[in-house]
Parts: sequence; C-alpha cells; structure tokens
Amino acid sequence: MVKLKVYEVGERKLVKMISGLIECEAAICPGSDDCAAIEYGDQYVVVTTDMLHQKAHFPREMTGYQIGWMATAANLSDIAAMGATPIGVTMALGIPKDTEVNFVLDLVRGVNECCRKFGTYLLGGDTDEHDEITLVGTAFGKVDKDKILTRGGAKVGDAVCVTGELGLAAAGVRILLQDLKVADATKDNAMKRLFEPEPRIIEGMKLAESGVVTSLIDTSDGLAVSLYELSKASTVGFHIVSERLPISGEAKSIAKDRWDLLTLSVYRGGDYELLFTASERSLESVPIPHTIIGRVIKEGMNLEIDGVVYNLKEEGYEHLSVTSPKL
Amino acid sequence: MVKLKVYEVGERKLVKMISGLIECEAAICPGSDDCAAIEYGDQYVVVTTDMLHQKAHFPREMTGYQIGWMATAANLSDIAAMGATPIGVTMALGIPKDTEVNFVLDLVRGVNECCRKFGTYLLGGDTDEHDEITLVGTAFGKVDKDKILTRGGAKVGDAVCVTGELGLAAAGVRILLQDLKVADATKDNAMKRLFEPEPRIIEGMKLAESGVVTSLIDTSDGLAVSLYELSKASTVGFHIVSERLPISGEAKSIAKDRWDLLTLSVYRGGDYELLFTASERSLESVPIPHTIIGRVIKEGMNLEIDGVVYNLKEEGYEHLSVTSPKL
Repeated sequence: MVKLKVYEVGERKLVKMISGLIECEAAICPGSDDCAAIEYGDQYVVVTTDMLHQKAHFPREMTGYQIGWMATAANLSDIAAMGATPIGVTMALGIPKDTEVNFVLDLVRGVNECCRKFGTYLLGGDTDEHDEITLVGTAFGKVDKDKILTRGGAKVGDAVCVTGELGLAAAGVRILLQDLKVADATKDNAMKRLFEPEPRIIEGMKLAESGVVTSLIDTSDGLAVSLYELSKASTVGFHIVSERLPISGEAKSIAKDRWDLLTLSVYRGGDYELLFTASERSLESVPIPHTIIGRVIKEGMNLEIDGVVYNLKEEGYEHLSVTSPKL
Repeated sequence: MVKLKVYEVGERKLVKMISGLIECEAAICPGSDDCAAIEYGDQYVVVTTDMLHQKAHFPREMTGYQIGWMATAANLSDIAAMGATPIGVTMALGIPKDTEVNFVLDLVRGVNECCRKFGTYLLGGDTDEHDEITLVGTAFGKVDKDKILTRGGAKVGDAVCVTGELGLAAAGVRILLQDLKVADATKDNAMKRLFEPEPRIIEGMKLAESGVVTSLIDTSDGLAVSLYELSKASTVGFHIVSERLPISGEAKSIAKDRWDLLTLSVYRGGDYELLFTASERSLESVPIPHTIIGRVIKEGMNLEIDGVVYNLKEEGYEHLSVTSPKL
C-alpha cells in the first residue's frame, strides 16, 4: 500500500479526511466553518482553535506583545464570523528554554490586552517546553440559536458586502519583505494592521442581531479564498466588481500596477474583515458600515474588471503542501 | 538589567508571573486549578488546555491512536477534576510535512474515540505544519455553580481519598525505559494505563453530585505533587499513611524494594486517578469506590511509614527547568 505523506495530500484534503472521522451528532460541526457550535439551552456555544508558530507566522519584526495579540485576534475573528459574543480564550504556549522571560510576559500581555479590548478574558492556558515558539489559542463564545451565522446560507441575488478596507495587511507584508521605502504613516498603518489585527467582534454581533445576514466569514485567508469558502458552503457563485472593492490607500500607494493592486487586495490575506451576504432589500437594515462589492449568482466565480468578466482564482495560502509562508 | 531566561526561572515560577498579568474578574481563574470556570446562567462553563509534543510526551512505542487518546484524556481529566460534565474537545495538530497520512488519521481516531468513550465530542481543530508532532487539546465542560469542585476547600480533619490504584503508569515507564522482562499481562496493563489513561469523568461527576467532597484534583502529576497542590490551594497540611496506599500489583512486581515502591506510587505521575477530601462523617455518602489514605492536618506534609513520620517531598516533574522527561 502506498504510504502517503502529509505534504503529498495538502492541508485541505487532509482536513477533509480528518473531518470524515469525527462523530459529532450533537453539534454543528466544522468542515465548512472555522468554529464548531454546540447546543447549550437556547444558545449555541461556539468554539474555535488555531495553532500558530514562529517560522510560518511570526516574522522577526514582531514583538512578543504582537505575537500574543495576533494569536488571540485570529481566534476571536472566527468567533466574530459566527456572529457570537466571546466568552473567553485559553492560550497554550510552547516556549524554547532559552527564551527571555520578558518576551514571554510581553506575549501574555498581548493576549490579555487583545481579550480585554474585545470584551472578553484570557481564562488560562498551558506552558510547554518546545523547540519553537508555538501558540495555540482557543476561543469560545455564545450566540442565540436563531441568530447564529455560518458560511452556508447565501442566496442567489443577495448583495455581497465587506467591512473596512482590503489589502492593508498585504501591503504590510510587501513593505517588510521588499524593505520598501514608504512614508512613515503608510508603514505604521500597514504594520499595525498586519501585526495587531482587530477582530470584528462588535460588527459580527451586530450582524447576527440584525437578522438580515444570510452568510458570514472573515477575510483572514484573503477575499478570494473567503468567497470560495462561502461558495462551497452555500452552493452558489459570486460576481465581484473590482471597481467597487474598498482597497486601502496604503495598498494603492505601493502597488506596481492595477493587476498588482488586485493581487494585494483579492489574493492575499491578513485583513480580518468580515465578508457577508444579505438580500438587496434588507441592506438598509445592516447596522454597520460596509461596502457592496458584488452579488451572489447561481454558479461561477467572476471578477469583473472594466466591464470584462474574468475568472476569480482560488488563490491564497495553504499550509503543509505549499512552501511559501503566509508572511 | 539581567535578562532572565525561561530555564532560569522554571515553569512554576513562570506560570505565577504569567498569572499576575491576567485580568479576569469574570471567572474563577486558574493559578491553582488546571481549569478556569466562567459563569453561564446557573452553571459554570469550565475550560482547560494542554500542550503535548513528541520529544517530551510521546515515546516512540506509542501509536498515533494512543497519542491522540492521551492528549484527549489529559484534558478530560482536568474537566473531571472540577466535577464537570464534558461538553466538547478541540484538538490542534502540529504535523511535520513528511508524516504519514495514516498516522495522522489514526491519531484523530484516538481523539475521537476517547471523546466518545467519555460521553463527549471532538468538535473541531486546526492543522499546522510543524517540525515536531504537537497536540494542543482544549476541553470544556459544565457544572452547576453550587456543585463545582476545586483544589481549595479541604478542611482539617477531612479524610484524604483516592480512586483506583497508584503506580501503574510509573511501572509502565520503567518497564519501557529499562526494557524489563515481566509477564505479558503486567506489561500490557501498564502500557495500557500509560498510553491510554482513562479520565475519571463519571467519578468526578458523581463526586460533584454527592455534595460531600471538599476538594478535588487528579493525580496526573503524581500523588505527592497533587497533595502539594491541594495543600497550597486549601492552606492545609496532609498526613498520608503509606500502608494504606492502593498500590498496583504491577508496581509491586517490579519494585526493587519498599522505598522504590513508594517512589513509583507517590513520586511519579501518569495515573489520572482522582484525589479528594471529604469529612469523615460524610464518607458513607461518597458514591464511588475509593481508598482512604490519610487525613487533612493543619500544616506539614507527612508520609507515615511503619509508624514513623517522614516528610513528604514535593517531587514530581517540572517542565522547562528540569531535563528529565516525564516518560
């Protein structure tokens, strides 16, 4: 029998194989969402976990504080993407023996302050000696059963909306990797977004409360990958109009050309905005600032540029089978 | 300023420093318990997380299934030690690229089956490319507010009790490390206990329900360390009578002498039994099989052997500052 290695199948296929082994009739299980939800009285308790480690996720420019913050924010963003209210976070830390104590404490401060800023608590964790700085955050939250939002539910004809701006984190990655000379404010904004992303907790809660949103996801893996995830879970297609994308000024200022700008804002991740769908007629009831970037169609993944329809590629980052790191 | 390294302060001190940074007024926070508890209506939701990795925790004799099982059992045991009913488990997996897919799937089967055996579910997880097999499980559970059990609460005069037998896992470690020639059944029992420990979920729930238990902990770090933890959290001492210890036949069969037998059963971990205190007069109401091994005293940590009182040492395993691995 062929003994397949993990790198030969890649993360997505591996996760699919793993999902097939999980017996979980009591919960809305993942597969399509980064959170699982389990019944608790009139509510769902939602839970998500995320493993990050130095080599792939933490460039040496990051401080301990920022590493702690980012690991926390990544989890809270998954809670936001269910429209849930966070209850708490745990953080397990793998730490090399010769790490400075101050670095570890700074990291914990980052976790704690990110929790506090978004209305929740660091409840505890674990420390373990490890060869590489490794953080595993787990966040859990709660949401009324009839209010929970998932990736499934987008309807043909719905408007596609996104919060905030796109491409700012990607601009940060490029400024770092290519050591670009840019205005201080441009670099500061991009680094702040990249290293201290702000999960859209309040926005997610308001979207759930509104009752008009049909599907929801965060854009941490990039707009294109996020749209593909919604597409698979909702069994629909998307038509996105590039001229409508709320692209950050920082991305515009460093992009080599228009195509490059689309790469930064569509095919790169790290922004942690919310991407959602809602019927056209209910858009006035959406209680948070957003930009309409396209509409849900029956099938196909379209990216319209100057009136010409191109195929939106499923391009983003996949662990385990792709060698280029996210950052 | 002296830049202290993690190995210079050790895990316990580091955890204390970390605990000082956590702002968590909404919860019963850890520091003294492996779980945190947060209010949820009439109940507490309790949560715990545990990071394990190959070099320190998984001897090469372990199968993928056993690795998954153990990582799950370790977390569920912390839930049991609060008297809580498990709600679910998440498992983040750090996997080297060249790991065989079958090994990973076997591991997930171990996680799933351990969850199902103890009445709960694997809710989801995360996969991450990592240099070393790393598992971070997070378990959560629920318990009525007035029923929750913690390490604090032992009263002077209480009886000290333990479930099951002691020293079986430690016997397993020694059989492995010294490649001892023992009867097949002895080896099988010890390996099973060591690699597929059974968290005392039902027993913990029954102890909580009984309303007569004053403090509770699991013995995963060994009897001595567990008694010290109860001592610190409850501000009491303990008088343990060695002749009363329910030492496993397997440990007896391999111990070199009586002192060695005490080492195996008191100063080594891995048994995942429950250690609890309850008033003498309420012992009849304790609804699970147990052995009385001593009593709570005002102060001091005593180990009585043949009528002579020795000092019970705080000997066990500490990560990060001690080089000898747990197994």
